[in-house]
Amino acid sequence: MDHGSVYMGIDLGASSIKMGIVNRNGSLLESRRVPLREHEFHKVLNRFDQLALEILNTHDLSWEQVAGAGVGSPGFIDFQKGIVKDAGNLGWHHVPLKQELYRRWGIPIELDNDANAAALGESWIGAGQGVSDFLCLTIGTGIGSGIIIGGDIYHGAGGMAGEIGHIPVQPESGIRCNCGKTGCLETEASGTAIARIAVDRARRSSGGLLKQLYERDGNIKAGKVIELALQGDDACREIVGDTGKTLGRALSQICYILNPERIVIGGGISHAGDILFNPLKKAFRRTALPQLVETTAIVPARLGNRAGMIGAAYLVHRKKERNLC
Amino acid sequence: MDHGSVYMGIDLGASSIKMGIVNRNGSLLESRRVPLREHEFHKVLNRFDQLALEILNTHDLSWEQVAGAGVGSPGFIDFQKGIVKDAGNLGWHHVPLKQELYRRWGIPIELDNDANAAALGESWIGAGQGVSDFLCLTIGTGIGSGIIIGGDIYHGAGGMAGEIGHIPVQPESGIRCNCGKTGCLETEASGTAIARIAVDRARRSSGGLLKQLYERDGNIKAGKVIELALQGDDACREIVGDTGKTLGRALSQICYILNPERIVIGGGISHAGDILFNPLKKAFRRTALPQLVETTAIVPARLGNRAGMIGAAYLVHRKKERNLC
Repeated sequence: MDHGSVYMGIDLGASSIKMGIVNRNGSLLESRRVPLREHEFHKVLNRFDQLALEILNTHDLSWEQVAGAGVGSPGFIDFQKGIVKDAGNLGWHHVPLKQELYRRWGIPIELDNDANAAALGESWIGAGQGVSDFLCLTIGTGIGSGIIIGGDIYHGAGGMAGEIGHIPVQPESGIRCNCGKTGCLETEASGTAIARIAVDRARRSSGGLLKQLYERDGNIKAGKVIELALQGDDACREIVGDTGKTLGRALSQICYILNPERIVIGGGISHAGDILFNPLKKAFRRTALPQLVETTAIVPARLGNRAGMIGAAYLVHRKKERNLC
Repeated sequence: MDHGSVYMGIDLGASSIKMGIVNRNGSLLESRRVPLREHEFHKVLNRFDQLALEILNTHDLSWEQVAGAGVGSPGFIDFQKGIVKDAGNLGWHHVPLKQELYRRWGIPIELDNDANAAALGESWIGAGQGVSDFLCLTIGTGIGSGIIIGGDIYHGAGGMAGEIGHIPVQPESGIRCNCGKTGCLETEASGTAIARIAVDRARRSSGGLLKQLYERDGNIKAGKVIELALQGDDACREIVGDTGKTLGRALSQICYILNPERIVIGGGISHAGDILFNPLKKAFRRTALPQLVETTAIVPARLGNRAGMIGAAYLVHRKKERNLC
């Protein structure tokens, strides 16, 4: 393998680290996913070290052959300074991630928000390839999005562009969000919302699969609701369908502002497929102007849970291509 | 005056044409505003001809000395083809404005949406000068906005970006909009909304200035409500304040998506000043995340009703500067 011909792509989450080696064409040559239990900054960095060495050894690579590393991190990021300003679910505040990784690895490091990294991955070799302006929505535990304008991430003034998880959708009657407000898109239409609604239903209903599941396990995970919905359970189909409706209405609001060419939807919840996408598209068509419906296509993401790693690698790749690092 | 040293800037509205000569520094050297009653396409073009000649004669200019003309038009515009696709209040559908003006005047012609032209004017020499990413809101009879990203208009896939007048703010209980939906920002917080609410109040109240006005004239104009609010009338201050609240909440939604560095607010209704801006900013602060409130400044427009003409001139100026026409 040529000197400096691959990148390390890191997708940092509250409960896991995904790390992989990506080549100049965006192919993921090797990747690992490990659970993350301790969030203390230097312990996380030690995990990074360990994982990186494992991956390099598997491919008989040395650090000299890695052209750089990109990290997609949850929370509010100062991508220019390479600082995680505020990541509630990691308990991180003003953490100099770029600087510390550079000190350890001595290669160019780039940092951005995890949803932005996923958008960039889909832009490079996924569902946004060749599309100048699109929105990439990631629906998992929470809801994140990355906005690509002119082929690059649009960050906005404070790096907060695309924080659509906090668009108010039920400000009067919704659930309290960890942002301090009530009825955000994230509290009403994320994986967490699906799990909460499923538990509510199970408690109130007199029978059915959800109730059995809840009585057995004491809780219900969003992934299970989607699994049951795909198997044809009516209650679960309804929960996923309602989530789609809420998302479709929110997306129409976003389109009045951005009118993107495409909306790419990924994240665990998107695996529900048509059960989610059909009511979502229907609600979108009903609430958006016809001109928006005509010009904005809604499509599933293509890279699955590899988008974050591939996009993180692209953070460095695009700088290399422009000779900026 | 040098050959080709000035531009003609045209701000076309449903009830008036504003046309002016703008130099390379963005200064408006001369302008005229004439009422527009007949909307038939060729009659409007004849009015353009007549007005342009008047302005040129006043400055002893010939067409040879005009480097180009820009037009800001209401409605949905195909700026690349120079076509007004759909302008309901002019009754225009697929009107080839650029082509026809070029046939008449023989100089480079550029066309865009009126709100985009106003945003570009504020970007050139107004409240958005030197700001890379901002939103320019124009609140008059309706609500339009132009989005500037990287110093240029962001159009979106179908040229519909910034159509924020149709963001749903009261989809259940609001007024029917001419877009076919209910409770759009435009039906709830524009000049038209202010006038409608004022008439409602006048009808229901037992006394006060609004009632006197309504009984005398049979209607109430938004400009009059603002005038009375500025003179201290409580009912009018409340109407303008409620409009500000609705706008502030909508702007916070927009900021979750765009996080612009600045929001510039112009149009007739913005002349209410603090009576509008204070409740607007308060509602914005209450509904947006602190990080957005910190990074997005809300400021009044600077160019008043000249923004459209100056921005329309800039449509040609920027192309000339880049040697594109």
